[in-house]
Amino acid sequence: MLIEGPLFVVSNRGPLSFSRAGDGSLVARRGAGGLVSSLGPLVRDTKAMWMAAAISDEDREAAEAGVVEAEGFRIRSLAVDLQAYRMFYEVVANATLWFLHHNLYELARRPRLDSRWHEAWDAYREVNRTFAKAIIEEAPEEATVLVQDYHFALVGTWLAQERPDLRAVHFTHIPFCDPNQLRVLPTTVAEELLVGMSSHQSCGFHAGRWARNFAACCKEVLGFEPATFVSPLSPDHEDIQGTADSPACSDELARLNERLGDRKLIVRVDRIELSKNLLRGFWAFDELLRTRPEWRERVVFAALVYPSREGLPEYLAYRHEVEAVARLLNERWATPSWEPVLLDASDNFPASVAALRRYDVLLVNPVRDGLNLVAKEGALLNEHDGVVVLSREAGVWEELGPASITVNPFDVSGTAAALHEALSTEAPERAAKARHARELAGRRRPHHWLNDQLKAADRPPRDG
Amino acid sequence: MLIEGPLFVVSNRGPLSFSRAGDGSLVARRGAGGLVSSLGPLVRDTKAMWMAAAISDEDREAAEAGVVEAEGFRIRSLAVDLQAYRMFYEVVANATLWFLHHNLYELARRPRLDSRWHEAWDAYREVNRTFAKAIIEEAPEEATVLVQDYHFALVGTWLAQERPDLRAVHFTHIPFCDPNQLRVLPTTVAEELLVGMSSHQSCGFHAGRWARNFAACCKEVLGFEPATFVSPLSPDHEDIQGTADSPACSDELARLNERLGDRKLIVRVDRIELSKNLLRGFWAFDELLRTRPEWRERVVFAALVYPSREGLPEYLAYRHEVEAVARLLNERWATPSWEPVLLDASDNFPASVAALRRYDVLLVNPVRDGLNLVAKEGALLNEHDGVVVLSREAGVWEELGPASITVNPFDVSGTAAALHEALSTEAPERAAKARHARELAGRRRPHHWLNDQLKAADRPPRDG
Repeated sequence: MLIEGPLFVVSNRGPLSFSRAGDGSLVARRGAGGLVSSLGPLVRDTKAMWMAAAISDEDREAAEAGVVEAEGFRIRSLAVDLQAYRMFYEVVANATLWFLHHNLYELARRPRLDSRWHEAWDAYREVNRTFAKAIIEEAPEEATVLVQDYHFALVGTWLAQERPDLRAVHFTHIPFCDPNQLRVLPTTVAEELLVGMSSHQSCGFHAGRWARNFAACCKEVLGFEPATFVSPLSPDHEDIQGTADSPACSDELARLNERLGDRKLIVRVDRIELSKNLLRGFWAFDELLRTRPEWRERVVFAALVYPSREGLPEYLAYRHEVEAVARLLNERWATPSWEPVLLDASDNFPASVAALRRYDVLLVNPVRDGLNLVAKEGALLNEHDGVVVLSREAGVWEELGPASITVNPFDVSGTAAALHEALSTEAPERAAKARHARELAGRRRPHHWLNDQLKAADRPPRDG
Repeated sequence: MLIEGPLFVVSNRGPLSFSRAGDGSLVARRGAGGLVSSLGPLVRDTKAMWMAAAISDEDREAAEAGVVEAEGFRIRSLAVDLQAYRMFYEVVANATLWFLHHNLYELARRPRLDSRWHEAWDAYREVNRTFAKAIIEEAPEEATVLVQDYHFALVGTWLAQERPDLRAVHFTHIPFCDPNQLRVLPTTVAEELLVGMSSHQSCGFHAGRWARNFAACCKEVLGFEPATFVSPLSPDHEDIQGTADSPACSDELARLNERLGDRKLIVRVDRIELSKNLLRGFWAFDELLRTRPEWRERVVFAALVYPSREGLPEYLAYRHEVEAVARLLNERWATPSWEPVLLDASDNFPASVAALRRYDVLLVNPVRDGLNLVAKEGALLNEHDGVVVLSREAGVWEELGPASITVNPFDVSGTAAALHEALSTEAPERAAKARHARELAGRRRPHHWLNDQLKAADRPPRDG
């Protein structure tokens, strides 16, 4: 590990969240979310300070108690104005920046950048300023500061001005829009965003495409190209293998095998999220069954999904559509002995891992995705010489593309053809493809991603 | 005029459409649509052959009679398979290419490029092939062929192969998407489209931005940059001035003035079309009235609109939303003596021209627009030192931007601020701005646009 000086991590969700026990005391449990589960084990025993927002009432109460020691690092929960936090998180982070960078807007109607939205942008700035102030006050001299994700695009502005000794890098876990898409934002907002990010020593992304988009936006709006680096995250192989080897997972695998018999299995594991393209995945399966009748009764499509952001009406509507289309396909194609679609929204992690061990085809077809760890997890865990059908719009395509069957995620017919090709691939080629995918997915470990950030931070500080 | 050799014009809608008179005979009347009304007067007396699709039953009956002589040119109505034509027109032209180039897709759900869509693309190719065959058979040696718009992107492929003597140019009247947006199409479809267009001597657009996007798409997908030219269309000044001077228009102006009294007038004239951004225009007016109470009772927003493409459910829904928001604003702000929003969907051309003569502020805020002739018509006709508030996403912004107040069309607050600025501009500056806009809008005449196409055609033919 490259960690020499003090380390400071900043993210929206923290590694612990607090709740109230029966006796009224505060109890800490591991925070949820991909970032936390990736970063958590990496900073264990580094004595790092991890700063995150105090979200629930219990979090905020714990925040008042000050720094919490945990698993070899320290947690600093930062209390922010709750009303400001809601606008920061729901309006700007989830409903603006997420939609912008994933290209999800229906532009005839959204976004509607009215006075309420501009107030939300002010709140986003305020929350970023609150975090910047705390870092400026609390970070030791020449600390390395790892600012995580699009929630904190502006923090760098004040760090560069007030603490030029700090070595701050920013890492974005989602895609980054191109200069034409950025035109949706008001010019001053776009400038503020790009100035904030480019005030770091360097900005990191999971794929070259997002780094190039960010650099092109800076070039067009600010007139210069900032330092960027590309560093795809990898799953913790030992950790997921541990789950794969667990009795819970073996039980799930046995149940799945019993249900399947000698049928083939297409799997997807996803959050129910507009960018994940669940609907076109089902339509492609529908087209496969319609145009290739030889697959009827011979293949099951298991979608292991979990609900997300149901406070946003778009997500609730999307979930209902996903459920309706899955039901429609079963009504259309099921026979007394065969249910073609298995939609499991129970968020059962051992069952998901069992499905990844067992798949013949893994469908990863997002319309846009910063990286997509599931594709790598599948390639690492699969025990069935399964083939990955992979969207060219996922960041992970830059790594796994050569070992996958590539799809244009908008092309339902093309996706149906790719599923057919994947199901029809002969055993020796399947084995070669699976081996290749496993090799590519295993090239990097989580610590490579952390080290890339530390390396990017370890450059002469920018002029304050 | 530069027309020397024979001239051949190709467009979807023709200059005449046919209907059945009371006595059962076929009667010709002028075709509808902006392209026809711009191009019609230009080719009068050129002896050009104008080829267009026979759409109605009566058109098809007239088509069987062969070429029709009209107003100094000849009309060749081409009958195409009706089922193929519907898919060509509704699925590909209106619901795919229009949405793609105007950036209107909600990508989580649309487009859904399934087998039915791929059949529609085959139909698009078939209709293009039918037109290409007819041109190949009927065009005189070395004729200049002006292929109009996104309906006929593929015709050039066969013309280049089978009639290299022809001087064919393609002109696109809508925007053109950038390489990232083009990724939505299946790769083979994108290639076919770009090969077809770049097979012409040159491809024309109303704005430099669309030409650059097209060239960038060709560079990325085909590996070369084709010849392009930029030639914005202009309204026929004499023609619209004729309408402005008509008694019908004066009557409408008198009615409008009576309704207004000494109030200020904001005007928009638009098709009810997703790209025109009617909703955010109303929301901006709402925000103006809320945040600048000094304008209450002192300004009227007249939206002169006309329905379009109501066969597509998106357009019907959009119309209902537009009507609902207009009603909401009147419910919210009206007083006994003042109705703030006047929504007129009667498609009354003299009334629209009267509004253009009278406006204090013309709002042209499309989310994306190939050109936008209304902005130029307004600048030419206005008699009130009116100010144009203009979207930076309209092609015409490249011409009228310097004489307008620029808005980001997604920024409702920014648009409200621009309306306030335009309404508040002092008389001398208003006069200077209006004069400048009139000068810029009057720089080009319709024949410049035609001549640019003829010039672009008059180059050594491409290698067959």
